[in-house]
Amino acid sequence: MATGKPDLPKLYPVGGFKLGTTSAGIKTPGRPDLVVMETIQGSSVAAIFTKNSFCAAPVIVCKERLSRSQPRYFVTNTGNANAGTGEQGLLDATSTCSSLASLAGVEIDAVLPFSTGVIGELMPMEKIRAALPDAFNNLNESGWEEAARGILTTDTRPKGSSVRFGDDNLITITGIAKGSGMIKPNMATMLGYVATDASVDQELLHSALVRANERSFNRITVDSDTSTNDSVVLVATGTSGITIDENSFEEFVEHLTNTFINLAQSIIRDAEGATKFVAVVVDTARSRSEALGIAYSVAESPLVKTALSASDPNWGRILAAIGRSGVEDLDVNDVQILLNSVLIADHGAKANSYSEESGQMAMQPEDIEIRICLNRGNVSETVWTSDLTYEYVRINAEYRT
Amino acid sequence: MATGKPDLPKLYPVGGFKLGTTSAGIKTPGRPDLVVMETIQGSSVAAIFTKNSFCAAPVIVCKERLSRSQPRYFVTNTGNANAGTGEQGLLDATSTCSSLASLAGVEIDAVLPFSTGVIGELMPMEKIRAALPDAFNNLNESGWEEAARGILTTDTRPKGSSVRFGDDNLITITGIAKGSGMIKPNMATMLGYVATDASVDQELLHSALVRANERSFNRITVDSDTSTNDSVVLVATGTSGITIDENSFEEFVEHLTNTFINLAQSIIRDAEGATKFVAVVVDTARSRSEALGIAYSVAESPLVKTALSASDPNWGRILAAIGRSGVEDLDVNDVQILLNSVLIADHGAKANSYSEESGQMAMQPEDIEIRICLNRGNVSETVWTSDLTYEYVRINAEYRT
Repeated sequence: MATGKPDLPKLYPVGGFKLGTTSAGIKTPGRPDLVVMETIQGSSVAAIFTKNSFCAAPVIVCKERLSRSQPRYFVTNTGNANAGTGEQGLLDATSTCSSLASLAGVEIDAVLPFSTGVIGELMPMEKIRAALPDAFNNLNESGWEEAARGILTTDTRPKGSSVRFGDDNLITITGIAKGSGMIKPNMATMLGYVATDASVDQELLHSALVRANERSFNRITVDSDTSTNDSVVLVATGTSGITIDENSFEEFVEHLTNTFINLAQSIIRDAEGATKFVAVVVDTARSRSEALGIAYSVAESPLVKTALSASDPNWGRILAAIGRSGVEDLDVNDVQILLNSVLIADHGAKANSYSEESGQMAMQPEDIEIRICLNRGNVSETVWTSDLTYEYVRINAEYRT
Repeated sequence: MATGKPDLPKLYPVGGFKLGTTSAGIKTPGRPDLVVMETIQGSSVAAIFTKNSFCAAPVIVCKERLSRSQPRYFVTNTGNANAGTGEQGLLDATSTCSSLASLAGVEIDAVLPFSTGVIGELMPMEKIRAALPDAFNNLNESGWEEAARGILTTDTRPKGSSVRFGDDNLITITGIAKGSGMIKPNMATMLGYVATDASVDQELLHSALVRANERSFNRITVDSDTSTNDSVVLVATGTSGITIDENSFEEFVEHLTNTFINLAQSIIRDAEGATKFVAVVVDTARSRSEALGIAYSVAESPLVKTALSASDPNWGRILAAIGRSGVEDLDVNDVQILLNSVLIADHGAKANSYSEESGQMAMQPEDIEIRICLNRGNVSETVWTSDLTYEYVRINAEYRT
């Protein structure tokens, strides 16, 4: 199950950035599961990773390499997360990089590894080594769509976003992502790769990445479980010949953020078992932390999420989730709750204007906005989530079997 | 669904404490849903309540009254939580107390109200007022079992615990509780009533209540949703003639805590849709907060809970939940995970001695212990939880319909 439209939008190529996909047969024979990406010499690369202390072997390797060199190649496998694999996992991640470095004729430090899939199994290294040359030979600037499919696991759809902007639309930003379960901020996406042909120096690029990520992948939750493998990479190849400087930085960040938000929302639309796409908006809050605290308390409440799956305007559960979020001095009488613009609760009770029929109507659409007005400040924050269904339980009870 | 044995244990009467139950037909005709309790003049009464800022009308009324008088009567209805009901809710809670006060010939301040059920509907006051005399007339010291049934909502079983101890077993502690969903610490139980015939002064009694509660109702979670109505009441009638003083206090607290733990575990055994009873034990931690942080991160993880429902020894998800709990400087290599005493993970990977067969075997019993050894301190904490099943989703998607 999933919400919204299943189609990938048009993904514009990014000059200087190539992608090659193949099937290594890691979990399912014939399924694309191995993706190599190459960026042109001189590109800037920024990346951020999961804050889970049990981070996967490839994440450890990525972080080390990024601290001492500019990467040129990215290799991603699905079907196996290479997490909870101890020393052997680190050796395997390094060995994958080493094989690709030989093929490409670069130093091993120029290769970053990424993995996603089952935790706790050793990597099928023979399969990966055998398939790497094919992925490498497939490298081309039009490889985005295939790669978008090649990085999926329990996802039911590929996820991508692409934009051209600036004078004569000369700058392109294109990105793909995967993620469907084990989704929670810090960071939420399991894997994301975004490239631009603008020229952006390393420091600016990292700052742009952090800002865009904060308003997108760090604002979604499916099940409040942070993955061991979360990684987002942002590459600037510079092939458009246009340099992002202080004057054009804000515009660049805005377009980048929109690309990130599109990818993040695609993950929520494809959340495991999802039948609803839910925006939880907390406004007129005193601070960002109180707005986010309440938004996550509501977005992660199993009782709110099961009510959503039944299209039940059960505002009592929303109210209970707001109340337990730990915000100090919250005056119940000031809080208003709206479901798709229908006022359902104020003054700590059902709104006078509310009828069960109007609530039922408001809950019918696939896209639901839960708006919570605290009426005590001027800060607004939005978190995106899905509903909790039988299907989520089925997928996750059966995932390993 | 539920785990363990469905039978109520023998509940000893507590001298000076009477219970009367009837059906007011609040939600289902004929179902017991209204309970009155009476404690003898001169009893000490202590109580603690939900920390949800949207607390229900009866909770607000209870807190006010307790600050200025010693209660003699407790009136509980199920089927309607009288939460999210604004000013009218407060009037209704007061009106219920007033009716009972007239029947009993006491001041209104001597009556405490409790409600549990659907949030956001106004109380069916006529039904309650009409049924109160019958509940009042049923008051008797052997009314525990009936009352245990009379306070239930989505629970599938009554919950009670009773003990006699001291010289010649002269002191009795008996308690009942209800709760099945919307269960999370601070506090977890929706309603609990415990009485003893020991004589305990007000201050000692409150201190005993806080200590017992901390190790029982504050250590369980079904769905991380804190209710708006949580209340636990502890009454000491003094009719045994035995006074708890500083010398006997620790023994009293120990027995009281065991009674509380039995009630708390009964709630988890009857958790909505539960097929497993799970103890998450975190030991050799540096501090209580880090032990509890990890225990709750594991106990509330939807991915761990769905794996449990499938009897899947998916230690990778446990490891990921430990890693995201935010404990500083956690060295993955020191952590060991045991499932029902089978070592499944150490040094950040699958244990050498582990086989999938031994893991599958360990997961078969209804009762599961997940033991997480951090090997960096000497603090141990235990949290009890249930698995996450289709049935949980069904119950909570259909609850209002």
